[in-house]
Amino acid sequence: MTLYKAPLDDMRFALYDVLGAEAVLGRLQGGEAHTRDLLDAVLDEAARFNEQVLAPLNASGDAEGCHYDKATATVATPAGFKEAYRQYAEGGWAGLTARETFGGQGLPAVLGALTKEMIDSANLAWGIYPLLSHGATDALEHHGDDWQKDVFLRPLVEGRWTGTMCLTEPQAGSDLGLLKTRAEPNPDGSYRVTGTKIFISAGEHDFAENIVHLVLARLPDAPAGSRGISMLVVPKFRVGKDGTMGERNHVAAGAIEHKMGIKGSATCVMNFDEAEGWLIGPPHKGLMAMFTMMNAARLAVGIQGLAVSERALQNSLNYARERLQMRALSGPRLPDKPADPLTAHPDVRRMLLTQRAFVEGGRVLAAYAALQADIEARAGDAQERKTAGELLSFLIPIAKGLLTEAAQECTKEALQIFGGHGYIAEHGMEQFVRDARIITLYEGTTQIQALDLLGRKIMQLQGAGLKHFLGEISAFCQANQGNDAVKAFVGPLAVAAKTWGDLTQAVAQSAQANPEELGAAAVDYLYFSGYVTLAYFWARSVLAAEGSHLSTERRQAKRDTAGFYFARILPRIHVHKAAIEAGVATLPELL
Amino acid sequence: MTLYKAPLDDMRFALYDVLGAEAVLGRLQGGEAHTRDLLDAVLDEAARFNEQVLAPLNASGDAEGCHYDKATATVATPAGFKEAYRQYAEGGWAGLTARETFGGQGLPAVLGALTKEMIDSANLAWGIYPLLSHGATDALEHHGDDWQKDVFLRPLVEGRWTGTMCLTEPQAGSDLGLLKTRAEPNPDGSYRVTGTKIFISAGEHDFAENIVHLVLARLPDAPAGSRGISMLVVPKFRVGKDGTMGERNHVAAGAIEHKMGIKGSATCVMNFDEAEGWLIGPPHKGLMAMFTMMNAARLAVGIQGLAVSERALQNSLNYARERLQMRALSGPRLPDKPADPLTAHPDVRRMLLTQRAFVEGGRVLAAYAALQADIEARAGDAQERKTAGELLSFLIPIAKGLLTEAAQECTKEALQIFGGHGYIAEHGMEQFVRDARIITLYEGTTQIQALDLLGRKIMQLQGAGLKHFLGEISAFCQANQGNDAVKAFVGPLAVAAKTWGDLTQAVAQSAQANPEELGAAAVDYLYFSGYVTLAYFWARSVLAAEGSHLSTERRQAKRDTAGFYFARILPRIHVHKAAIEAGVATLPELL
Repeated sequence: MTLYKAPLDDMRFALYDVLGAEAVLGRLQGGEAHTRDLLDAVLDEAARFNEQVLAPLNASGDAEGCHYDKATATVATPAGFKEAYRQYAEGGWAGLTARETFGGQGLPAVLGALTKEMIDSANLAWGIYPLLSHGATDALEHHGDDWQKDVFLRPLVEGRWTGTMCLTEPQAGSDLGLLKTRAEPNPDGSYRVTGTKIFISAGEHDFAENIVHLVLARLPDAPAGSRGISMLVVPKFRVGKDGTMGERNHVAAGAIEHKMGIKGSATCVMNFDEAEGWLIGPPHKGLMAMFTMMNAARLAVGIQGLAVSERALQNSLNYARERLQMRALSGPRLPDKPADPLTAHPDVRRMLLTQRAFVEGGRVLAAYAALQADIEARAGDAQERKTAGELLSFLIPIAKGLLTEAAQECTKEALQIFGGHGYIAEHGMEQFVRDARIITLYEGTTQIQALDLLGRKIMQLQGAGLKHFLGEISAFCQANQGNDAVKAFVGPLAVAAKTWGDLTQAVAQSAQANPEELGAAAVDYLYFSGYVTLAYFWARSVLAAEGSHLSTERRQAKRDTAGFYFARILPRIHVHKAAIEAGVATLPELL
Repeated sequence: MTLYKAPLDDMRFALYDVLGAEAVLGRLQGGEAHTRDLLDAVLDEAARFNEQVLAPLNASGDAEGCHYDKATATVATPAGFKEAYRQYAEGGWAGLTARETFGGQGLPAVLGALTKEMIDSANLAWGIYPLLSHGATDALEHHGDDWQKDVFLRPLVEGRWTGTMCLTEPQAGSDLGLLKTRAEPNPDGSYRVTGTKIFISAGEHDFAENIVHLVLARLPDAPAGSRGISMLVVPKFRVGKDGTMGERNHVAAGAIEHKMGIKGSATCVMNFDEAEGWLIGPPHKGLMAMFTMMNAARLAVGIQGLAVSERALQNSLNYARERLQMRALSGPRLPDKPADPLTAHPDVRRMLLTQRAFVEGGRVLAAYAALQADIEARAGDAQERKTAGELLSFLIPIAKGLLTEAAQECTKEALQIFGGHGYIAEHGMEQFVRDARIITLYEGTTQIQALDLLGRKIMQLQGAGLKHFLGEISAFCQANQGNDAVKAFVGPLAVAAKTWGDLTQAVAQSAQANPEELGAAAVDYLYFSGYVTLAYFWARSVLAAEGSHLSTERRQAKRDTAGFYFARILPRIHVHKAAIEAGVATLPELL
């Protein structure tokens, strides 16, 4: 069985030392309750639950998978999954960050991000069920009518019910404008929803009393394309406006998919056949509500990336220390043993440091983004809320894109360290690769993240988030250019940040001349942005490590990993810059 | 089901137009028979067999896998595999490139490389069975006694028997010096072989009358480490020196592995319990014989990389053309359709061109290397044979390392083009990713290839192969610097080749000062070498396309892909150069 130990020490380092979250949270509305003691207690308890309950179900859940029963249209989840969910709901985890009005605990989003990381490290497939509930909760909180909040939110927050996002259709994947599901009005204000949705995570399962589907559909008078999409709530069991549960609604799973990984997660074909649904928000404005769900979900998927990489790192590091194979090139390290440990070989260390650089840097990025969500929601100052919101919305595609792509590299390297043993199911490394492969695809592919970043967050919004972020980096560099602890990193960081700004200008200009340049640049621009972003968080981590609670050795490890990152990973920005500058002319039509 | 159509047009382009193989082969010993008509006929027939017989068994073989029966210690291969092998043996494919003395057809290795590509595209898992037979044939041909050749070679060449390479043990993976299997002499000159071997491809199956295991073991008087390893031939059924088959030998499969992919390939634990074996070559010199097997196998594994990438490319290109999703950023391409094809999006073209650049460039590299094997074996001039041998041995780790790592990237991008559908088993793309994942591991990991390249082929052999190759590139650049067709590529190629030479000098110097620098540089040096090597073959391809049989459109496609490669892939060498220069100091011990 693969190891998992929650990286509490590094989580606290990111939270308190790098981000100073104690002070930030303390001055937000309601923040007086969010003391370090409380946060630490939650982290400890989360570690216990995830290490002991979810982590042991990871391999068995993969081996067993979900089973669909055609006769009853029900899905049986792997052994132990349902019971783990019961404990999760009982422990109050479902409502950790939800508003207290609806039974939640109202704890900070940044705490939710760290506990989410533990869940996904422990069991990525299992973690998808509550992830979808969070998305549904967010959408209902922001866009639902009062009765909808009253009826649906409390059971979701308590974990008695779960949620889904029903977006994709066979002909409508990245392109939601093509969707065909119809919603026709009934005299009582409800709608009859008819259509087929695919790839619906947690669409059917045995965890909960009811499932709340948030469905994108077209009303009869809908304009064509993405401007004619509405969102409806369609529960598995009908629910009256007074909250009483009625009979089975006309929505059912028609099949589950056989997938490369996340086999414990039920990915369903959902058939809606004049199912009763209720409009959420105004007609034809469903995409706005969807983006509310989607934004939170995208950050969560970025966190999945660092989570699966964290567990792959733990296991490959442990193996590299224990496995004796070949001698160090400069002579035996362990002359009394038949060979030296794999860590004696520099390229094995390269593969380990690659994982560590992405995982620990990515953890700061994810926590920083989540902290912006807290500031946006609860800062006293309107300008501060606005800035935080802009930073968050700018960083979401970067975090999702970079951390999910990095997870491909990290899980690949982790498997590689095991040699042929990595390819054998019993060692568990190949499951990490298979599980991780979904995350660059769902909640918007890397390509969609890149277009969101460059097309929307940079071009349409005049790069507001980037300006804030570059300003912050610039202030950091100016404040620390003479600081011995970090000055080796400040120089290259300042240059990279300057290049980022210049490159953005250049891309914006060429895209105005030819919109195809935007599509040709977007993914490379996403990587470029991601690598500079991590460089910033690595420089901050080195600075924060000085004077932190970290041991001398752990401080040195932070410096070492930052040094590795700046020397061997950050130079990748030059390849991406070259690709962007080469432009669409180098991406001709294929014969 | 996934598509597969043998890329005969591009194979012929590589063979005749780029490499001028017709003239090269024609002047080798026995080359008068190897006419273009003959080669073309073999390619056509190989295409038919692989498209019609092996390709349709690829998905079913993955779904079904191999089954081990404990009671009989036998392995049942997936439905259709055995019958396909019968047709393969009957068609004479097993002995295509084997010497005529032993029933082979004596056809060129370069033809073997192209037909091997087709087999591996059609069915990577199936292709592993004959691959191992080839390795065993090579080792017996070069190192066996006369009676061993008489007895074992003909049935292997005819495909009635198959072979294995029994190297790995639980504690001895990359480090064969640690192996423990013993071989004790019998009075009749045979040996009793005892030990456990793991990861033995084709160790047990239902294809053949007998299985010829080539086993690494230690004799009683063996020196410790890798200088005390001998090779023995241990058949599943005993064979007398007169060729008569006797009773079952004491070797049996103890289990098969459950793997991430290549599930149709039986990967066995093999238990030898005083099994009768015969020494091949001199005592304690088994590694030399093993490298004979290994070198051919390593090139074959590089070919597996381009083969699986070729099929992934065919399927993702087809999907990208048919799948309508989103509009082109500069306005609708197909206004009458609900959306534009995926190929309208520049980043999808980037993913397709990445695959094409590696596949078509890699095909020339593999064919070039195989042609060196032909020259080494059959050129009239001793110096020409020596040079070809040095080139081949230099290019093998590059071809194996680069083409297998590129296959990870190609299959990943191919899956990505399918979006969420790529993650679903029925589309077949995820199988390519799973199957491809083994090839950076077996027959020496990428790390082992890198150490072979830098430690052995560059440092120990004074870079003889590199000198030949850089000389060839230099001559090409000088001859074509004024040639309008390729001059845009000649400049950057000449610079990259110059940098390659300089970097080699620098690495050699720093490694002499500190051997750990060699380990810190090796993998990045491998990538650097690989990217420059492909740049050379792309420049040659553009030149060859002029005046070739290719259509105007296909010539343009060659120029386009070369342009893409030079603009967007080749710049990666700068990252690898930076990493090499950063040195071992940036790869510290991990806390």
